[in-house]
Amino acid sequence: MIYLQQVKQHNLSVILKDIWKHNQISRIELVESTGLTSGTLTNLTHELIEAKVIREYQSVSGTGSVGRKRVLLAFDPHFYRIIGLDIGRTSYELVLTDLTGTKLQSKNGNIDAALGPEGFMAIIGPQLELLKSEVLADGKKILGLGVGIPGPIDYARGSLIHPPNFEGWDGYPLQQVLESRYGIPTIIEDDARTSALAEGWYGFGRNGMNLVSITMGIGIGGGVISGGGIVRGANGLYGQVGHMTIEPNGIRCECGNKGCWETVGSIPGILRRWGGSDMDAFMRDVRDNKADACACIEATLQYLETALVNIFNMYDPEVIILGGRLYPYLNPYLALIQDRMRNRIYAFAKERVLLRPSTFGSSQSAMGGTAAVFEALISRPVEILGYVK
Amino acid sequence: MIYLQQVKQHNLSVILKDIWKHNQISRIELVESTGLTSGTLTNLTHELIEAKVIREYQSVSGTGSVGRKRVLLAFDPHFYRIIGLDIGRTSYELVLTDLTGTKLQSKNGNIDAALGPEGFMAIIGPQLELLKSEVLADGKKILGLGVGIPGPIDYARGSLIHPPNFEGWDGYPLQQVLESRYGIPTIIEDDARTSALAEGWYGFGRNGMNLVSITMGIGIGGGVISGGGIVRGANGLYGQVGHMTIEPNGIRCECGNKGCWETVGSIPGILRRWGGSDMDAFMRDVRDNKADACACIEATLQYLETALVNIFNMYDPEVIILGGRLYPYLNPYLALIQDRMRNRIYAFAKERVLLRPSTFGSSQSAMGGTAAVFEALISRPVEILGYVK
Repeated sequence: MIYLQQVKQHNLSVILKDIWKHNQISRIELVESTGLTSGTLTNLTHELIEAKVIREYQSVSGTGSVGRKRVLLAFDPHFYRIIGLDIGRTSYELVLTDLTGTKLQSKNGNIDAALGPEGFMAIIGPQLELLKSEVLADGKKILGLGVGIPGPIDYARGSLIHPPNFEGWDGYPLQQVLESRYGIPTIIEDDARTSALAEGWYGFGRNGMNLVSITMGIGIGGGVISGGGIVRGANGLYGQVGHMTIEPNGIRCECGNKGCWETVGSIPGILRRWGGSDMDAFMRDVRDNKADACACIEATLQYLETALVNIFNMYDPEVIILGGRLYPYLNPYLALIQDRMRNRIYAFAKERVLLRPSTFGSSQSAMGGTAAVFEALISRPVEILGYVK
Repeated sequence: MIYLQQVKQHNLSVILKDIWKHNQISRIELVESTGLTSGTLTNLTHELIEAKVIREYQSVSGTGSVGRKRVLLAFDPHFYRIIGLDIGRTSYELVLTDLTGTKLQSKNGNIDAALGPEGFMAIIGPQLELLKSEVLADGKKILGLGVGIPGPIDYARGSLIHPPNFEGWDGYPLQQVLESRYGIPTIIEDDARTSALAEGWYGFGRNGMNLVSITMGIGIGGGVISGGGIVRGANGLYGQVGHMTIEPNGIRCECGNKGCWETVGSIPGILRRWGGSDMDAFMRDVRDNKADACACIEATLQYLETALVNIFNMYDPEVIILGGRLYPYLNPYLALIQDRMRNRIYAFAKERVLLRPSTFGSSQSAMGGTAAVFEALISRPVEILGYVK
């Protein structure tokens, strides 16, 4: 990209970020907040309106003859559509959103982990085709497809690298397959990281908060948003909080470490320690005060507490988000765990860190797929929209 | 700052970063790497030369009549000086460098922790005055003073927040005192973070590597450099790796947590577990194969190994740097520990992470003080040089 396009992309990105931050904002306020000249701002916002990324609308404050009319700018929900897809080991979810992060459609289902990637494609393919044709028939355009899937991710290849407990997906060229078969620009992302992106763009991060999002289910993953952006690390492994050792003499984990939080704190970890095979049965035993279930839940909460303290001390976030399929079972303990975590961190910072459930519940990762595409748009608008040749 | 100055600062910063990265570079190469027009580049490099931040010099490749002359740009080591100061609990170090990170002078000494900040100022003040007058008498200019000190740091106030085991420093307005008494622009930084900055600018990070720097001594601190910059977190606590729980049933730590790595893996932690008061005596017993000392060093290495695996899984760095007063005792075990760490991380990433000693040994934090000032120059040149009114 030549320099003038770089400058333009930078300026467009600044404008889009400011509009997003304020939800709606006037051109005069934008001139102030961006530092751009009003001429440049007028030209660039005109382009964004033409491109149907943002729209103008009139706001009237006050009433009758004293009412003051202002023209405000906001993201345009009418033209672009984003598809989010969460691929789990035993389930999937497909969502369609507009540019404001509003969910327009969603569909989910269970899958047999043994199907492998081509089996999964056979299920999801027709649904993607249908969704795409509906959007096009409606006169709209699909900006992109964002996929959340268990990592680690090979970002360069758009594939997975030895994902634990996920047969057949190692090296499968997922991004390339989706792009070539369905003709939609596709982003592949670790599902813990899509969950963090959903929170970062549409949830707690909207006002710029530093956050760590933890996804607890079959595994335990983490996504870190710091200084306004997601952090990926040297090998795409940043934020693998599920693989910190929490039980020094614990069992070997598939990652190579031992006593990982995931080995004791995930759904399989809890059930293994309890000696059963069903979370609902386990929670019934907890409610019935059965001694072994009570001991197991208490140990689970202690592991969680220690993990949260470590996460606080290592990432210093303003909010830690808990989500994933395990979370609903832990929800009743949220306030208790926040207290216990706060009692183990620096006194001066105690009240400054929040523990919160994920904003989109079970749709967190699929919504995060759309957030990944939205992040690409807002960070690299020229490239993504392709309207500057 | 108005928009044009922002653009200028951005462009100057891009130029300085590219010169730094390449060590020396021609204007033609800079036009290519920065994307700036050659007119803009000529003007801005002219300003930087006038300001004595960079200099031109002639390079001749080949010999005789076929020798090719090129004008290269590099940082100018002749005019600006930077002072780095490390304030430890029981020792201090003062260094003077030029703009290329070359150490020109250093001085260190022991201090009595009971002196408190004013007692410390009484010792360091005359030395700062002397250094300043020497630099000025020599016709040079001091760009700034960077201080590494045990945290946590209150960046807004330039002071410390309840630093553990550091009597009298809580809330002491260190930055303000140094600036008003000695008239030198001052940056205050956590000493684990200055150590990371030294590595980031002058050591392993010079080629853009993601790194975690661990400082082990009376306490254990960490500094994280990710995506080219140091990360500070919401409360200045990012990278407090010494306060991850490594011993679930361990003792209470001053930070509020229990079983922190620092409680078992720092110098006091090791000596407490061994039951002695002197590291040299401890290592003699290790060399003499005394059973309790051998058990204690093996446990120390196991704690270190677990901590390193956690650090890898949470920060995904390319290199982990070990330094601080404890490090020389651990140096003989470095290769062993790197192997043990690598055997507990994702197989595909195993060979991609290095464990290395800090580049500047005991001067790491003081050198990092100068690196903090250099980072400010290179990131905010207009502001730091103040030559654009």
